[in-house]
Amino acid sequence: MLKLDGLMVSNKLRESLSENIEKWSQASGRRPGLTVILVGNDPASEVYVSHKHKACQKVGIQSEVIKLAHDTQMEQLKQTIETLNLDKQVDGILVQLPLPSHLNEREALETINPKKDPDALTIENIGLFFGGEGRVKSCTPNGVMEILKYYDIPLSGKKAVVIGRSKIVGLPMFNLLQQANCTVTLCHSRTADLKEHTLEADIVVVAAGKPEFLGKDDFKKGAVIIDVGIHRKQVDGKNKLVGDVRYDELEGWASAATPVPKGVGPMTITMLLKNTFDLARDQG
Amino acid sequence: MLKLDGLMVSNKLRESLSENIEKWSQASGRRPGLTVILVGNDPASEVYVSHKHKACQKVGIQSEVIKLAHDTQMEQLKQTIETLNLDKQVDGILVQLPLPSHLNEREALETINPKKDPDALTIENIGLFFGGEGRVKSCTPNGVMEILKYYDIPLSGKKAVVIGRSKIVGLPMFNLLQQANCTVTLCHSRTADLKEHTLEADIVVVAAGKPEFLGKDDFKKGAVIIDVGIHRKQVDGKNKLVGDVRYDELEGWASAATPVPKGVGPMTITMLLKNTFDLARDQG
Repeated sequence: MLKLDGLMVSNKLRESLSENIEKWSQASGRRPGLTVILVGNDPASEVYVSHKHKACQKVGIQSEVIKLAHDTQMEQLKQTIETLNLDKQVDGILVQLPLPSHLNEREALETINPKKDPDALTIENIGLFFGGEGRVKSCTPNGVMEILKYYDIPLSGKKAVVIGRSKIVGLPMFNLLQQANCTVTLCHSRTADLKEHTLEADIVVVAAGKPEFLGKDDFKKGAVIIDVGIHRKQVDGKNKLVGDVRYDELEGWASAATPVPKGVGPMTITMLLKNTFDLARDQG
Repeated sequence: MLKLDGLMVSNKLRESLSENIEKWSQASGRRPGLTVILVGNDPASEVYVSHKHKACQKVGIQSEVIKLAHDTQMEQLKQTIETLNLDKQVDGILVQLPLPSHLNEREALETINPKKDPDALTIENIGLFFGGEGRVKSCTPNGVMEILKYYDIPLSGKKAVVIGRSKIVGLPMFNLLQQANCTVTLCHSRTADLKEHTLEADIVVVAAGKPEFLGKDDFKKGAVIIDVGIHRKQVDGKNKLVGDVRYDELEGWASAATPVPKGVGPMTITMLLKNTFDLARDQG
């Protein structure tokens, strides 16, 4: 079985991105800029934001993190975003989700200028993406596509199953695979017999959010398995990361699969960096 | 086999729409208004536009058709749309497609105020639709959903196949069925083995654009078949309308199916009327 090494693909892409950013920055006299807004102090969000900040610095993107207190009101959050919309040094604005429950996420996202939305979450960017003329693509699904492309996995005419229909993973994943000419089935919590679908698929993208949910018996021999899940698990008193798929079972059965960690995970931030740079180039 | 009588469903919906429009008009002191812009003199487009015009009049929607010469330039078309955007009597603006080839369809559509877009074709409305908070739904797919609803056809957990991935039928049809908790497979011209998919489906929506393309052998016994195709055919020197499906074969096999004509066809305009009224109410 071919291990789809997302960490390696991610590193290669970041290297080449770093070179391109360097060239562009010398030509344009400025660096691409990403500003992340973090409201409150959710520990998981703080870790994600710090990963994004470090990744930016490594590839030459100017990164700023604006921390707002948990009790920040909507008006203040919107003003913060609007100031960034007008700032020519800022090419990407990212509101770290989830927001505290008293704030309206959709309203916050819609305040972002869609031309500065590297997460592809504004209504305009969703519309452009499903209208087929997308400006930026959702980071995680686009990361999956980059892994498939790197390993030259054939897509056209293949049967793909996507499990999960969230707006940030499942739905855009469906759309990218169908645009690549796969015949795609979207499965979800209301699917009557999931295995019936996964057993027929050449490619399965699992974003079910359930630890070690699927294994060898769920897949056709020779299938390509992409695992978007990531969960913390205690094994012998130690923390271990596991996905939605029991990766260890796949050896000798799947033709290729992404491990967890070091599979899809690192690609999400890489695509965020790429989108930020693409938006910077569009803005000149 | 249950004949899914789209014409009857359409008539019932238009009746109730007509009553609601009457009440609303008395309360608001005005009628909902739809303006259709027709550029050039394509005979098929002229027929469609005249059908829409008559249907509006019948349910009490103020309808206007603006005919522009074939050689109309983009700037003039955009000015026409912008004038309608500002006109408080106009709730819906419809640019009849296809436009002559020298005009940019996307640019024309994007000139329409999304709050006056009953065809749900602007980027904002596509984004709202796939973002799950839609303002209006694409007319033909939404018409299919209304037929399924009228006949109480169960959807949640059912396997649906949509054939065709156009922006006005296939893709939004996929989205409406998945929102209704079907497990949906989107098939298209690059699908390797179409029959393999259709044979498994509880519900098949055929929008392949190929006359009498599928028949009994392609479907599971007891399936529900929705035919979006409409084609002219010469039989014994007479014009006949046929769909993508050989309807006559389905008797004793399918559990329910839409005929052509008088199936999905009439629902498209009905949903256009409904969307126009919904937009009028939103605008007050």
